[in-house]
Amino acid sequence: MAKCTAVIDIGSNSMRLAVFQKTSRFAFHILHEVKSSVRISENAYKNGGYLQSDAMDRTALALGEFLSIAKSFDARKILCVATSAVRDAPNANIFLSRIRREYSLSIKVISGEKEAYFGGVACANLLPPTLEALSVDVGGGSSEFALLRNGKVEQLYSLNIGTVRIKELFFDTDNIPGAIAYIDEALKQLPSSLSTEALIGVGGTFRALSRALMKKESYPLNKLHAYTTDSTAFLRFAGQIMEAAPKKLKSLFIKPDRFDTIKPGTLILDRIIRHIQAKTLICSGVGVREGVFLSDMLRNSGDTFPANYNPSVRYLLDTYAQHSTHAQQCAHLSKRLFALLHIPLEIDPSYRYELAIAAKLLSIGIGIRYYAYQRHSHYLAMSALDYGLSHPQLALISHLLLFKKGASSSSLIPKDGYGKLLPDNATLDTLSSLLWLSHILLAARVDASEIELSLEGNQLIIGGKSTYLAREQLKNIVLPKNLSVVFA
Amino acid sequence: MAKCTAVIDIGSNSMRLAVFQKTSRFAFHILHEVKSSVRISENAYKNGGYLQSDAMDRTALALGEFLSIAKSFDARKILCVATSAVRDAPNANIFLSRIRREYSLSIKVISGEKEAYFGGVACANLLPPTLEALSVDVGGGSSEFALLRNGKVEQLYSLNIGTVRIKELFFDTDNIPGAIAYIDEALKQLPSSLSTEALIGVGGTFRALSRALMKKESYPLNKLHAYTTDSTAFLRFAGQIMEAAPKKLKSLFIKPDRFDTIKPGTLILDRIIRHIQAKTLICSGVGVREGVFLSDMLRNSGDTFPANYNPSVRYLLDTYAQHSTHAQQCAHLSKRLFALLHIPLEIDPSYRYELAIAAKLLSIGIGIRYYAYQRHSHYLAMSALDYGLSHPQLALISHLLLFKKGASSSSLIPKDGYGKLLPDNATLDTLSSLLWLSHILLAARVDASEIELSLEGNQLIIGGKSTYLAREQLKNIVLPKNLSVVFA
Repeated sequence: MAKCTAVIDIGSNSMRLAVFQKTSRFAFHILHEVKSSVRISENAYKNGGYLQSDAMDRTALALGEFLSIAKSFDARKILCVATSAVRDAPNANIFLSRIRREYSLSIKVISGEKEAYFGGVACANLLPPTLEALSVDVGGGSSEFALLRNGKVEQLYSLNIGTVRIKELFFDTDNIPGAIAYIDEALKQLPSSLSTEALIGVGGTFRALSRALMKKESYPLNKLHAYTTDSTAFLRFAGQIMEAAPKKLKSLFIKPDRFDTIKPGTLILDRIIRHIQAKTLICSGVGVREGVFLSDMLRNSGDTFPANYNPSVRYLLDTYAQHSTHAQQCAHLSKRLFALLHIPLEIDPSYRYELAIAAKLLSIGIGIRYYAYQRHSHYLAMSALDYGLSHPQLALISHLLLFKKGASSSSLIPKDGYGKLLPDNATLDTLSSLLWLSHILLAARVDASEIELSLEGNQLIIGGKSTYLAREQLKNIVLPKNLSVVFA
Repeated sequence: MAKCTAVIDIGSNSMRLAVFQKTSRFAFHILHEVKSSVRISENAYKNGGYLQSDAMDRTALALGEFLSIAKSFDARKILCVATSAVRDAPNANIFLSRIRREYSLSIKVISGEKEAYFGGVACANLLPPTLEALSVDVGGGSSEFALLRNGKVEQLYSLNIGTVRIKELFFDTDNIPGAIAYIDEALKQLPSSLSTEALIGVGGTFRALSRALMKKESYPLNKLHAYTTDSTAFLRFAGQIMEAAPKKLKSLFIKPDRFDTIKPGTLILDRIIRHIQAKTLICSGVGVREGVFLSDMLRNSGDTFPANYNPSVRYLLDTYAQHSTHAQQCAHLSKRLFALLHIPLEIDPSYRYELAIAAKLLSIGIGIRYYAYQRHSHYLAMSALDYGLSHPQLALISHLLLFKKGASSSSLIPKDGYGKLLPDNATLDTLSSLLWLSHILLAARVDASEIELSLEGNQLIIGGKSTYLAREQLKNIVLPKNLSVVFA
């Protein structure tokens, strides 16, 4: 089993473990996660920030089991960070030395800025690229902000506004105006120039609201990471949450374990979004734990992936691409077909990117089962293509992997599915034709360079040896209306 | 990449390649398949069995590309067999020596009995166990029969009745009575004592009819292998096929590429089923190619798997069980829970088998993606659990892998799904409780032997250290109504 790294994050509200496994130099996946609602900050904010002894006992017990889990995965590294509650506690050392004594574990208490950095690094590397965005992580005790520009973390801020803190200080006594005043006062610490079009939401509250909004709007993908919405719709929904009676929260798709912190969290987000004047909101499925892991893995490359590197695509290829040679050859040939045909077939040149990824992933489904492997490839891409792609890109790449003899790609769009995220049918059908044509032309598994391509009017002429199977299989695909294919 | 074996099967109708990859000593999966409709027997039966030169040219061309494909998978072994058409051809040597000269490939022309043996070995090893069954493989030129008893091939027969042969000799001149007389005459060569309850259908015609019947009856699983039906329903459907006008075949779910051989094939099957007086028909998704591969892989173990060995379960564990230790521990603990509780909870003891397999496969979905891994485990089991299990077993094992916090297993049965293949809701919910209870009790990844179990009345008492997370997670599962769980 390849090297694993365990990351433990002791937040004010809950403690979490994630076990990461690398599948190649920069590709990874999560092997295990656990969350324990230890609430180390319970009653701390009312008591001058002092950690209470019950809370410390619970945390120590759960932490012991986290370490037993990490050991069961043979984790070579255990990176344990603690944030706001421990950071602010005058008696933190009692807890830290107890853990060091009992488990020989050094907990790293990180500053608010460092916490903001970890969240920012995760977003900068694992969300689709944006020119400029502000990542906002609303935690239990504090909120962290990172300004991202062109994939780099540029500025960091940390404010003492968090769900548990606001709940204990204001919501427990129904003092909502007090909460608003407190939050707005804290936000004044941000530079007045800080205003971005795009805001990236990190952390449980933003995720819970996004999940609920997706359900409410019957969003066609079951994927939180990179879910994008405009702030008007989001703020309208936030208003409904704030006004909802406890019983109503369930019908707004909020899960019961969020009931006690959802309103303070929603209020904090609402004030931040208005303050920043963000127009577009992007949900992040990654945060501090991924940031801690990435900062460690990418420590010798400036905390960023190499250019044009997609860790999800690489993970899928590492894990499923028994046929990597064929996949690479398909990618080459489909790019040549695209270069030759995208102008006459009127396809936007930007789709070359998605086509090439789809070609590389063409046969990953065989790793599940050969029969109907196209359906399995589609399932794998839909499930595991998480990072660095927008939802329309994810839907397009995944959909291109579906194939049915004699059927156009647009006829395979599932009803009530992700159809509204896809390009128009003509574009989709043409991209699919190019992809599956490249697959079929390589039926005899020759090198793509042996296939000769030329265009005469609307006729694509195929030259090269070993085309018996290709000729036989050509009838299986639907060609674009204005293209015919002949073999030289 | 692990060792691959390529198997090529030159039939009368089509030539096929399958590339097998072993994942451990006896576990394997298919990496690639190709079929080329070379029809080596074209016009042969009207010409004294002589292979015609166009047909030989086509076969040679396609075979060259098959070998190029095998090479691309770095196949260490290429096993190439030829059946009826080549076997019967007076000029077979012209073809065989040409292939030897051009490709340095020795084609093994196998006898009808050997062909029957390969089909029989595949069925005996890869279908759910039956006390006695007859496998019947209707090919293009001949039909092969193997009598299976307790997982062993006992008797073999081969008759010169095949779809292409019957088509060319009778259907092309619309002489159906002649075809019936010819088939019935051939069937007299079988021993008069040969009559089995169960008939296993191998080969394209039986598969095409089964697939069509499944669609017609909205069968809830999309899986041909091990599909079981009674002969009355099957023969009724066969009658509809025989009487259907060519246009009607499509509405009976027959694919166009089968149109010209489906009627001769159906007639042959109809006469065989009546002759054998079979009551239960089982569809096999495996045949000669799998038999050739298995005979090679199992050559030192009497052409059978070890006792209680399931190659599909092992394949899934080899490929996806990053967590094999946890899976093994879950299997142990769930068996202990089952032993302690199946009598008070009124569960049939036979379900221990499916429960243990489900426990082993519990976390395979993590190999796709950690989030919602239960859904991925379910998908993997549904897709890749092919061999040695009946459809009700497959449905039960796969369904047990689904999990949702606070929801009973029976509430997760998909509408219009495989529900009718599952046991009653009470049994299902109880089995699911035992499975997920064992998972949760091992939350801290301790050894299953550290968990102490005892029963007092309806109270299950859990002892052992490291149960903090287990206590916290216990609320996530729905326990059987007449069982409560307490921690000592």
